Amino acid sequence: MERVFTVPDPERNKLASLEKQLGRNLDHFLSASKVAGEIPLGQLAEFFKDSKVPDEPRFVQDQIDYLMKHVIPYCVNTGSPKFIGHMTSAIPYFLQSLSKCMVALHQNVVKIETSRSFTFLERQTLAMMHRLFYQESESFYDKHIHSRSSTLGVQCSGGTIANMLGLWMARNTWMESILGHEAAGDGLIEALLKSGKRNICFFVSQRGHYSLSKAADLLGLGKKQMRVIPVDAKHKINIEALQHDIEKAVAENLQPIAIVGVAGTTETGHFDPLEALAGVAQQHQLHFHVDAAWGGGLIFSNQYKHRLKGCEQADTIVVDGHKQMYLPMGVGMLLMKNPAHANVIAQETQYIVRAGSFDLGRRHLEGSRPGMALLTSSALHIFGRQGYELLVNHNMDLAQHFAELIERHPEFELITKPETNILTYRYYPSAWRGLNDVAVSERLSNLNRLLQKQQRESGKSFVSRTSFRYPEPSGASITVLRVVLANPLTKPEHLAEILSEQVEIGRGLVAELN
Amino acid sequence: MERVFTVPDPERNKLASLEKQLGRNLDHFLSASKVAGEIPLGQLAEFFKDSKVPDEPRFVQDQIDYLMKHVIPYCVNTGSPKFIGHMTSAIPYFLQSLSKCMVALHQNVVKIETSRSFTFLERQTLAMMHRLFYQESESFYDKHIHSRSSTLGVQCSGGTIANMLGLWMARNTWMESILGHEAAGDGLIEALLKSGKRNICFFVSQRGHYSLSKAADLLGLGKKQMRVIPVDAKHKINIEALQHDIEKAVAENLQPIAIVGVAGTTETGHFDPLEALAGVAQQHQLHFHVDAAWGGGLIFSNQYKHRLKGCEQADTIVVDGHKQMYLPMGVGMLLMKNPAHANVIAQETQYIVRAGSFDLGRRHLEGSRPGMALLTSSALHIFGRQGYELLVNHNMDLAQHFAELIERHPEFELITKPETNILTYRYYPSAWRGLNDVAVSERLSNLNRLLQKQQRESGKSFVSRTSFRYPEPSGASITVLRVVLANPLTKPEHLAEILSEQVEIGRGLVAELN
Repeated sequence: MERVFTVPDPERNKLASLEKQLGRNLDHFLSASKVAGEIPLGQLAEFFKDSKVPDEPRFVQDQIDYLMKHVIPYCVNTGSPKFIGHMTSAIPYFLQSLSKCMVALHQNVVKIETSRSFTFLERQTLAMMHRLFYQESESFYDKHIHSRSSTLGVQCSGGTIANMLGLWMARNTWMESILGHEAAGDGLIEALLKSGKRNICFFVSQRGHYSLSKAADLLGLGKKQMRVIPVDAKHKINIEALQHDIEKAVAENLQPIAIVGVAGTTETGHFDPLEALAGVAQQHQLHFHVDAAWGGGLIFSNQYKHRLKGCEQADTIVVDGHKQMYLPMGVGMLLMKNPAHANVIAQETQYIVRAGSFDLGRRHLEGSRPGMALLTSSALHIFGRQGYELLVNHNMDLAQHFAELIERHPEFELITKPETNILTYRYYPSAWRGLNDVAVSERLSNLNRLLQKQQRESGKSFVSRTSFRYPEPSGASITVLRVVLANPLTKPEHLAEILSEQVEIGRGLVAELN
Repeated sequence: MERVFTVPDPERNKLASLEKQLGRNLDHFLSASKVAGEIPLGQLAEFFKDSKVPDEPRFVQDQIDYLMKHVIPYCVNTGSPKFIGHMTSAIPYFLQSLSKCMVALHQNVVKIETSRSFTFLERQTLAMMHRLFYQESESFYDKHIHSRSSTLGVQCSGGTIANMLGLWMARNTWMESILGHEAAGDGLIEALLKSGKRNICFFVSQRGHYSLSKAADLLGLGKKQMRVIPVDAKHKINIEALQHDIEKAVAENLQPIAIVGVAGTTETGHFDPLEALAGVAQQHQLHFHVDAAWGGGLIFSNQYKHRLKGCEQADTIVVDGHKQMYLPMGVGMLLMKNPAHANVIAQETQYIVRAGSFDLGRRHLEGSRPGMALLTSSALHIFGRQGYELLVNHNMDLAQHFAELIERHPEFELITKPETNILTYRYYPSAWRGLNDVAVSERLSNLNRLLQKQQRESGKSFVSRTSFRYPEPSGASITVLRVVLANPLTKPEHLAEILSEQVEIGRGLVAELN
């Protein structure tokens, strides 16, 4: 058994070869123009039907053979320049190697005793991110960067956990205002009974990420207490409607605790008016939480960072490293304006997360965690602000270019212009133009749903689809094609090819449907 | 910028060299007998004080140089055979390479469109783990392994999240019983008002992991509604006290919703009487949740798996792959007896986690996640049940051996015998024996606290420490040294050396204290 824990060089040949081939962007397994194998999902599931743990060990080489034959060829080539449907794209080559090092070092940043330098590296990384958004003074960072009694943020597995952390802090802050420091012990009902309120609630636009309603369930207030505010014609939260709904909630004896601003919606990439939201939050003394999981990347670009104006007034900000920062899955971050704020969710034990220690697990939703700061910190240094700026600006230009292609094309309709590197559009056959009634709208939604599925199943390229209510005044729900332009390897010719493929599929479908 | 996303072979030299050296168990950076650098933490923090994101990019080579000089030498050699204080130990070499492949493939298992085969691989892995614990029929697994309408479990970032998921399910199941299917929308207070109950509560022994009380806070019931039951002289939950407390809770108008059984406590490695707990849970119709994050590994051993008897009656079971299964950080699992159970926490959106899809994100606390099943599945195949059995049995034998060494030694006292591969003991100078009063107990606790700190700071080896109340009848709180024997590279001679080092430190401290 010991052999498995030390490095036997000759045995590593197949592993080394697998690593090398996968490093070359999957070209060995999936041709560069393919995004996925052609096998239907139901059939693919059949490969993975054996539910027994094998009794006997298997040679490492044999397992690698198995993976190369049955698993890897049927995953998704998310690094393909024509995979432009989700927020997952190419990964920098050095992060592959550094991830291996991270696993080899096997640190656990829940506490200092299992991480030492990695704890400080994580705190430094969070301070760097904090400084980008909040721009506090040098002495502020000197004081808090390694303070045992405060934290500038937390690194966690993703934006979902970061959103939950932010709302958990908002809820506990309100509970503490009612119950004092024992709030976390007494629970929500005690705080509600004492305050005389029916429930607590928070506000977010109809474009908010689904993790927010999940958080409303998890935290005990219930999904209905996430009050969904309509967006205006520009897909931004309607401030008047928000003000009205806050008053309505108060009249219903609900206690508002937070406003969530979205900085780059998942579906369309739009920014809420963050400064205006900060003003409303201040007026009503509410926690202001900004979900910048997607749009946070714009902070690196001198040309575009103004869109994040208002963030610096937020109590908490979510940023996802595995989105616009090109890090592997698992790099969510929550930044906190007030470094003492996270004490409302603090934990202490004797054997882990000891009081007064450097232990990062003291103020966190998660427990054991890998030393991801190795990746975050390295990426911040290797790209530098300028490197990320180049990537952001390139993606914005490409999105703008694609929007123009679509607008010029007689068979497509641009639905949402890109405010970040996301846009939505639909295939709209020339013959159906001018028939502007509800029936056509439904037929178009159906057509685009079928088109997206057929394109996905052919495996040559990938865009996603979503449905949302059109902004006022129309209000109808439509299905659209959704494109995320985040892969630096995607070229204008790839986009032209994708439109050609969609026209071909679309025309075929129209012929079938008629 | 594109260069960074493709693989430039010459530039990889330093990366490749770093990978190779780290693969050799950190020997290049930390001599094999060292567990950590000698620099004090306060001084180490000074290396990580710069909070500015550098404006200009840095060459990959320069970043590697920086890491090798300033970061890696100051982390913790968790793979050292003399690092026996926490649940983090050596990592199999093939998992380093496979982790790199996982990052290169960059799948996101939140949905099928960004993972395809990886979604099925994860479901298969969960079915394998489910079958180990629940041993349902072949047809049961055929039906559920890839069912869109159910799930046998979830893979998540760790045991903390898995515990939260299990208790979230328990809470929502009770809420649904009161409010019907809209429970997740209406929230806890509506369910409490309708049921007339003051609050809900669950039960766990005083040795339960701190993530459980964190979950009580997070889920809105409050930490006090985690009712802490004393343990007996064998560190197992006192069933009589539990029965009594359930009655007491009901008399206080609290609604019991769950009992948590601990299968391998974090501090001492003990198992609660799971079958008896299952009986109590059934009697009161409570959700039975087993936290087997540590002890779950015993399932692989024919010699020891009987200790998990009763698990098969649990509604939910937590297992941590990064503990006894030797996987990298980030492999928590929650297994569910009833495959439809997780529907009480289901989410749906148009753009992700679509209703009726294979999307793994539909019933989960987390969102975007890496394709960790590549590692879990490969480890299950490469070790096989027999391989894991060898490791489990070896660790149990070594723990037994260490316990005997301690018991035979005139200057140590064994506090808890190993029921799994964890034991606790304390340094007890011969001269202090026979003075059995409270003052000696306090002096011993202080002495062992100082001893553990000095040993940790010297960096030659590492054991952890904890404090707990001694089981009845004494009831006093004592500080003990805590050892986790999970590294297959740890030999009896390492253990003898550690005791010698502790005797030397202990004698020095006694001389100073006198």
